[in-house]
Amino acid sequence: MKPFSMLLSVAAVLATPAAAKPAGDTEATMRALYGSRAFNVARQSLAADYDRIVSEITTLTEIPASPFKEAKRAAAYLEMLRAAGLTDVEADEEGNVMGLRKGTGGGPLLVVAAHLDTVFPEGTDTKVRREGNYLNAPGVGDDTSSLPVLLAFIRALDKAGIRTRSDILFMGDVGEEGPGDLRGMRHLFNKGKYKGRIAQFISVEPGRDRVTNGGVGSKRYKITFKGPGGHSFGAFGLVNPAYAMADAMVEFGKMKVPANPKTTYNVGVVEGGTSVNSIPFETAMTVDMRSVDAGELAKEDAYLKSILDPAVARENAARSTAKGKIEYKLELIGDRPVGHTAPDVALVKIAMAAIAIGGGKPELESSSTDSNLPMSLGIPAVTIGSGFHTERSHAPDERLLLDRDETVRYMTMSLATVIGAAGIAK
Amino acid sequence: MKPFSMLLSVAAVLATPAAAKPAGDTEATMRALYGSRAFNVARQSLAADYDRIVSEITTLTEIPASPFKEAKRAAAYLEMLRAAGLTDVEADEEGNVMGLRKGTGGGPLLVVAAHLDTVFPEGTDTKVRREGNYLNAPGVGDDTSSLPVLLAFIRALDKAGIRTRSDILFMGDVGEEGPGDLRGMRHLFNKGKYKGRIAQFISVEPGRDRVTNGGVGSKRYKITFKGPGGHSFGAFGLVNPAYAMADAMVEFGKMKVPANPKTTYNVGVVEGGTSVNSIPFETAMTVDMRSVDAGELAKEDAYLKSILDPAVARENAARSTAKGKIEYKLELIGDRPVGHTAPDVALVKIAMAAIAIGGGKPELESSSTDSNLPMSLGIPAVTIGSGFHTERSHAPDERLLLDRDETVRYMTMSLATVIGAAGIAK
Repeated sequence: MKPFSMLLSVAAVLATPAAAKPAGDTEATMRALYGSRAFNVARQSLAADYDRIVSEITTLTEIPASPFKEAKRAAAYLEMLRAAGLTDVEADEEGNVMGLRKGTGGGPLLVVAAHLDTVFPEGTDTKVRREGNYLNAPGVGDDTSSLPVLLAFIRALDKAGIRTRSDILFMGDVGEEGPGDLRGMRHLFNKGKYKGRIAQFISVEPGRDRVTNGGVGSKRYKITFKGPGGHSFGAFGLVNPAYAMADAMVEFGKMKVPANPKTTYNVGVVEGGTSVNSIPFETAMTVDMRSVDAGELAKEDAYLKSILDPAVARENAARSTAKGKIEYKLELIGDRPVGHTAPDVALVKIAMAAIAIGGGKPELESSSTDSNLPMSLGIPAVTIGSGFHTERSHAPDERLLLDRDETVRYMTMSLATVIGAAGIAK
Repeated sequence: MKPFSMLLSVAAVLATPAAAKPAGDTEATMRALYGSRAFNVARQSLAADYDRIVSEITTLTEIPASPFKEAKRAAAYLEMLRAAGLTDVEADEEGNVMGLRKGTGGGPLLVVAAHLDTVFPEGTDTKVRREGNYLNAPGVGDDTSSLPVLLAFIRALDKAGIRTRSDILFMGDVGEEGPGDLRGMRHLFNKGKYKGRIAQFISVEPGRDRVTNGGVGSKRYKITFKGPGGHSFGAFGLVNPAYAMADAMVEFGKMKVPANPKTTYNVGVVEGGTSVNSIPFETAMTVDMRSVDAGELAKEDAYLKSILDPAVARENAARSTAKGKIEYKLELIGDRPVGHTAPDVALVKIAMAAIAIGGGKPELESSSTDSNLPMSLGIPAVTIGSGFHTERSHAPDERLLLDRDETVRYMTMSLATVIGAAGIAK
């Protein structure tokens, strides 16, 4: 965890997103890369691969990968990594799949990852529909679309004969979305065979100009309200946990949070009750609170905790507790550290330069991604765009724009970041 | 449907539950039945069958029968009806199972039914556990415990050689609980092969002294709240249907209803959302409103409808509607008629006399049972107790008391009602 003073500096950076000019060596190195013949071959490879990438996005989207249910998609992606010619292709115990592209040995290990999981629950129809210039399907963008881009990176590097100093571990990881709570990353950095050897981390997500160097912290809870339950007519008048939950939800929805440092909250899932004519014996909701500032996140946490007792007390006062009172259980289901990779760290400078030189408008931002975990460990990490523009992420009408030229242009910038981070062998 | 003046008289009866003295002919007939040698044999048959009944309750409880999923239990019960020696044993198109015990032809058709379905959703563990003098399991009482009692009635009638004037159709029916909305009864009375031929109807439910001659009316709705959804962090600030639903739920919970005529309401099931870090695009709740008085039920209905627009408007005002507003859909999922069988109708008098002469304390009451449907058609109907005492109906800790003597005593009274209603052949 970063000290508090550093967290404040994250907020300061976010307050004025820098269209940072790459400085000195980094800029020169990246300009040289862009000007090289090899990089031009790599760019052409990406362009030639576009249709294949889109086809692979469809294939992978249609293999559902709900949180904790990524295994089938992981198995398919593992075979794709193998087919791309990596070595040491394997799945780890947590369910991440990965393979190495060996470098010349002059640099430390770089991980380039996209996450396998989507937010959508089991049973969601993920059939991809083409409508105009869009592919439509739950999860088609976040983060399924990035998985084939990693494969295209590998093919482009090979076609261009680019040798990097660092080994690059390409990975499809599990548990990035809500309930997964970064379990893929926790395993990779704290337990897996590459533990202690990873010097830099790049997460690829849909997007273009934004370089995520701030990790938004989050606290997530499942709050369960329990009561005696009973027959809706015969036991009418007994306390009902649904009313206590509703009361808490209304109060939660009144929370005031600052726009800057960005701080948010959400009721995500509500559930409970057995039938229309039974007083529920249990209802539950999950809530998500986030901030780029640890202090604001702590305030949200305190606010949530302050509203639960009164909400439950009001229900216990409003109806009969003769058969039992309403009680609640607060269960922490997600706890992502606030993290930061400073703007002057080489990895951030490389990513910013790659976009600026490629013709984009780089912006630093904060988000909650796989990079939070390495950031919290002090390991340089950024989340960069795959080149694809997507819309309505996490909504059932999620969609991915098919604008070949712009996508390839930005995809090329991200490949430049990967190469820059891994270093070109002389 | 009964005229409104009659509904008021139901309320009047309910206001002063009558420990009615059976009058004249009915009392004499029932006393003669109780004094007969044949009835004594029938009583001994019920007593001898007690352990078998308890064993069959366990067997049937452990075959789950969620609403619309009664088929497996129905098939098992059909075989039990067949084994009990009935004729014309069959399942109808709706899923009810039934068989005839032929009478001598002097009386009109009597139906004696217990319902197959429970309130518990698929996947509920219905393994029966014995604890002290109780059998514990979801659904063990309501109404599973009545199904074997009907079988014991048939065996007792046969053993005693009792011949009735009316044919008796014994039935395990579907769709009594909430979502079923009396579909079994609707089919039986409006479509099935016995349509137009049923003169009297007896529903058997757990219980002892109470004779249900008033059908509590109900209105049930599923209310779905929809919004644009989105990423909890990226799209923070958009309207969230969970808050609109919570607002409506809090207002619903403030509804004032009279204790007399008895009027109730309930939020039964809440659901919605896809993940903790997504703004839900849809949440829903089911509500149940009941009254023995049609006017009070209409007031509840109007109250519910009055709170939805303001709740949705408050959410649309509280957060951004830039990506879409919250809207709601109100869907009627249950509509049970208020019904009544007058206290001076022979069937009611027989049931009251059977309990009084048997040593119980008969009370008239209103409830929402299969009898609502025939009552609403003007067909004499009552719901009587099986003799079993159960507790915590519709709750996961539902249980059934094993007090052999009292159970058999009351079971015998209910058999007397069945015989009295069908009439003993001379």
